[in-house]
Amino acid sequence: MRLSQSFVRTAKTPPADTETVNARLLQQAGFVDQLMAGVYSYLPLGLQVLRNIEQIVREEMDGLGANEVLMPTLHPKANWVKTGGWDNIDVLFKINSRTGNEYAMGQSEEEVVTPLVMSRVLSYKQLPTKVYQIGWKYRDELRAKSGIMRGREFLMKDMYSFHTTQADFDKFYQEAKQVYLRIFSRLGLVAKATEASGGAFTKKLSYEFMVLTDAGEDDILYCEACDYCINTEITKTAVGAVCPCGNGTLLTGRACEVGNVFDLGQKYGQDFDLGYVDENSVKQYPIMGCYGIGISRIMGVIVEKYNDELGIVWPKSVAPALVYLVSIPGRDNAALVLDTATKLYSSLQAAGISVLWDDRELSPGAKFGDADLVGIPLRLVISDKTLASNEVEWKERTAKEATRVSLDAVIAQAIAFK
Amino acid sequence: MRLSQSFVRTAKTPPADTETVNARLLQQAGFVDQLMAGVYSYLPLGLQVLRNIEQIVREEMDGLGANEVLMPTLHPKANWVKTGGWDNIDVLFKINSRTGNEYAMGQSEEEVVTPLVMSRVLSYKQLPTKVYQIGWKYRDELRAKSGIMRGREFLMKDMYSFHTTQADFDKFYQEAKQVYLRIFSRLGLVAKATEASGGAFTKKLSYEFMVLTDAGEDDILYCEACDYCINTEITKTAVGAVCPCGNGTLLTGRACEVGNVFDLGQKYGQDFDLGYVDENSVKQYPIMGCYGIGISRIMGVIVEKYNDELGIVWPKSVAPALVYLVSIPGRDNAALVLDTATKLYSSLQAAGISVLWDDRELSPGAKFGDADLVGIPLRLVISDKTLASNEVEWKERTAKEATRVSLDAVIAQAIAFK
Repeated sequence: MRLSQSFVRTAKTPPADTETVNARLLQQAGFVDQLMAGVYSYLPLGLQVLRNIEQIVREEMDGLGANEVLMPTLHPKANWVKTGGWDNIDVLFKINSRTGNEYAMGQSEEEVVTPLVMSRVLSYKQLPTKVYQIGWKYRDELRAKSGIMRGREFLMKDMYSFHTTQADFDKFYQEAKQVYLRIFSRLGLVAKATEASGGAFTKKLSYEFMVLTDAGEDDILYCEACDYCINTEITKTAVGAVCPCGNGTLLTGRACEVGNVFDLGQKYGQDFDLGYVDENSVKQYPIMGCYGIGISRIMGVIVEKYNDELGIVWPKSVAPALVYLVSIPGRDNAALVLDTATKLYSSLQAAGISVLWDDRELSPGAKFGDADLVGIPLRLVISDKTLASNEVEWKERTAKEATRVSLDAVIAQAIAFK
Repeated sequence: MRLSQSFVRTAKTPPADTETVNARLLQQAGFVDQLMAGVYSYLPLGLQVLRNIEQIVREEMDGLGANEVLMPTLHPKANWVKTGGWDNIDVLFKINSRTGNEYAMGQSEEEVVTPLVMSRVLSYKQLPTKVYQIGWKYRDELRAKSGIMRGREFLMKDMYSFHTTQADFDKFYQEAKQVYLRIFSRLGLVAKATEASGGAFTKKLSYEFMVLTDAGEDDILYCEACDYCINTEITKTAVGAVCPCGNGTLLTGRACEVGNVFDLGQKYGQDFDLGYVDENSVKQYPIMGCYGIGISRIMGVIVEKYNDELGIVWPKSVAPALVYLVSIPGRDNAALVLDTATKLYSSLQAAGISVLWDDRELSPGAKFGDADLVGIPLRLVISDKTLASNEVEWKERTAKEATRVSLDAVIAQAIAFK
C-alpha cells in the first residue's frame, strides 16, 4: 500500500477522553475510528490486523477439524424464547420490524447453531462434530469502555462442539485448550487457562483464557510455579497462599479475558427438543460446548502489551505490514530515489513481504515518527545518502540503532527477518 | 475438505415452498440454511463461494485505488436524522437500546462514510479519494423472496468516491463502469449497464448493472445491436422500437440488479456540513458517488444462470472447490484405493488445487449424484477398476462422458484445467 493513496492520516495528538492505551494509540495511529461509544470503524491498517488475527485463529480451528460456517445476525425471537435468553439476557439487542416480527441480534449463537447442526445430526455415528464461525456480535452494554476491548459491536470466533458423552467433551476440551494456548502464543500473548463461574445458565465452571494487563476487567490469582489460575470471583483464597501444587505461592493481577469455554451440558438440545439416536435406538440430547475468542478485543490487548513511548510495536504475526518503506527524495537525486524505491517496493511484494510505502511529500522526521507510531516491525529508508553507497537503512522497531544493508542483500535479509 | 468430517448432508428432495431455482438448489445441495424468510446461514461450501466472489471484487476495487475499510452495523440515530433517512427510508431497521440510545442498522453507509472520510479530507489536494467495504447490510423488507437474491440480511460491497468536480466524478464513473463489467465477466455473468431512476433523494439518473434472468424483479429494454439498456420504469419506449443507435431494435427481458451506481451530488457533505478547502481557500462540498455490488445476491444469480437437471454447475472462478474426488474402496483393494486417494488429495492441494474429497461410506451412485448436485467443475474417481490400469476417471461437470487419465498425468492436467 502506498500511503499517498490513503485517506487516513495519523494525528499529532491523541484523541481526547481516551482512558486506555489501546484506544489512544489505535485512533492516533489511524487503525480505527470511533463512531460512538463501543462502536468502531476499522480503517485499512486496522482491518489488516483483524484479518491477520482471524487467519491464525481459522488455521487452528480448521486443524481441530471444525467446520467453518457463517450464521446470521438477525435471529427469530422464538429461538430465544425457547432457551430463556429473550427475557434473561440483559445485553440482548431486540428489534421490532415493521412486519410485526421481533428479532434478537446475535450475541452468542447457541440459539442458531443448535437447530442448524442437530437438524442434520440424526445418529450417534455423526458425533462428535464441531462448527465455528468468525462473525460480528452485538451486545447492549450499559457502559462500553477500554477502547476496542469491550465494544457493543465486536468480532468474535465462536465454536460449538457436540458430543455423546461428558467424557468425550472433557477429552475434546483438553485438546481445544492446547490449541487455544497455541493460538495466543502465535498472537504474541501469554494466556492463562483460568477457572471461573459458568454464567447464568449453569452451575458448572467455565474456563477463561486470561492475559495479564492493567486494562483488563478481571482479577486473577495465579501460581508463580505452575499453570494454576483462578478468577478471584469464585475463590476465597488470598494472595500469598500456597498453590494447590505445593511448589509456589499465589500472585494476583489484573487480567483481560481473551477466550472462554463453556460446558453447556444438554441444555440446548433439550430446549429445542433436538436429539440423536444412540446405539440402542434411544433418543439422546447432545452434550455441547461453546468456545469463544474475542478477535477485535485481542487487537486491543496486543496494543496494551506491545507499545512504547513512540507508539505501537506490533508482533510480526499480526502486523499490518512487515516493512515500512520510507523514500526521501532529497534535492539532487529525487528521480533515482523514487525509481529505486519503486523497484524495492515491487521486489519486496514479489517476495511475499507486505510493505507500506510512505511516498508522501512529508519531512523525513514526520515519516520516521509515523513509522514508530504505526509500529511496523521493520523500517527501510532510501535516500540519496544511502544510495551513494548502494545501500538502504535498516531499522527494526525494537532496535535502538539503525544499520545499513546493501541493496543487493536487502530482500534476502527481509525474508530472513520475516 | 473431507466430506466425512462435514456435518452437512445434501437432501434427497428439495425443500418445500421454494419459489426459485437458487433457493431450491442452494438448500438442497447444502450451501445455505434458511433461518427465517430472507435470513440465511452460510454452510462451509456456501461460505467458500461467498469468499471467492468477495476476493474477485476486492482485487478489482484495490486496482481502482480504493481503500478498504469496515464500517459498523450499529449507527447513531443522529447521523440518520441529519440526512433525512431516519424518517424517510422505510427499510431502515431501528433499535431502542436499554441505555436510551437509538440506533439504525446499516443498509447503506453514506451516514458513516461521509464523516469518516471528510473529517480527514481538508484540502482539494486530497481529492479524489475512494473508500470501500465488503460488509453485511440489513433491510426491513416487507417481503423477502427469491432465495438469497433479496434478503433482509445480505453481503454487499459498497464503494464511495469523493470528487472536487462533476467532471471528475463522470470520468471516474466511466472507469468504474469498465471495472464493474470486468468483475461480472470474471464471475461468469453478462451484465448490462442500465439507466434507472436515482431513488428517493435525487432527480438524477442512476446506473444499474442488470443480468437477464427470470428470477429478477426488474424489466429492461435492451438493444440487440449495441450496449443501450434502460429500465422500463423510466421510459415509455416500447419493445420493438428502433434503438437510439439506429442499428437494432429493442428487446425486453426480466433482469436482476447485481450492481448500481448513484451520483449523490453534494447532498451528504452538505447534510453533515463537512467540506474541504479549494485552491482559492474557499470551503466546498465534495461531489460523491456510491457504487454497490450485491455479493450474496450474485451467488444466487450465478446459480440461476448455471444449473441443469442434475444440480448446480459452478463457473470455475467461484466454485467452492475445483475438484470433487470420489474414492470407491470396493471389496478387494480398499486399502490401496484409500492410500492412492489420500496421496492424490494431498498432491492436488500441494499444487494449489482445491479439493472436496468424498470419503464417506456411501454408494458410488450417491457420491456421483452429490458431485453433480453440488456442481464442482471436475470429478475425479479412484476405484479398484481405475487402479487396475493406474488411472483415475476424469469427468467434467459440463461434459457428457467421462474419460480416463493416468495417475502420473492427472495433477498436470488438473492444473491446466484450472
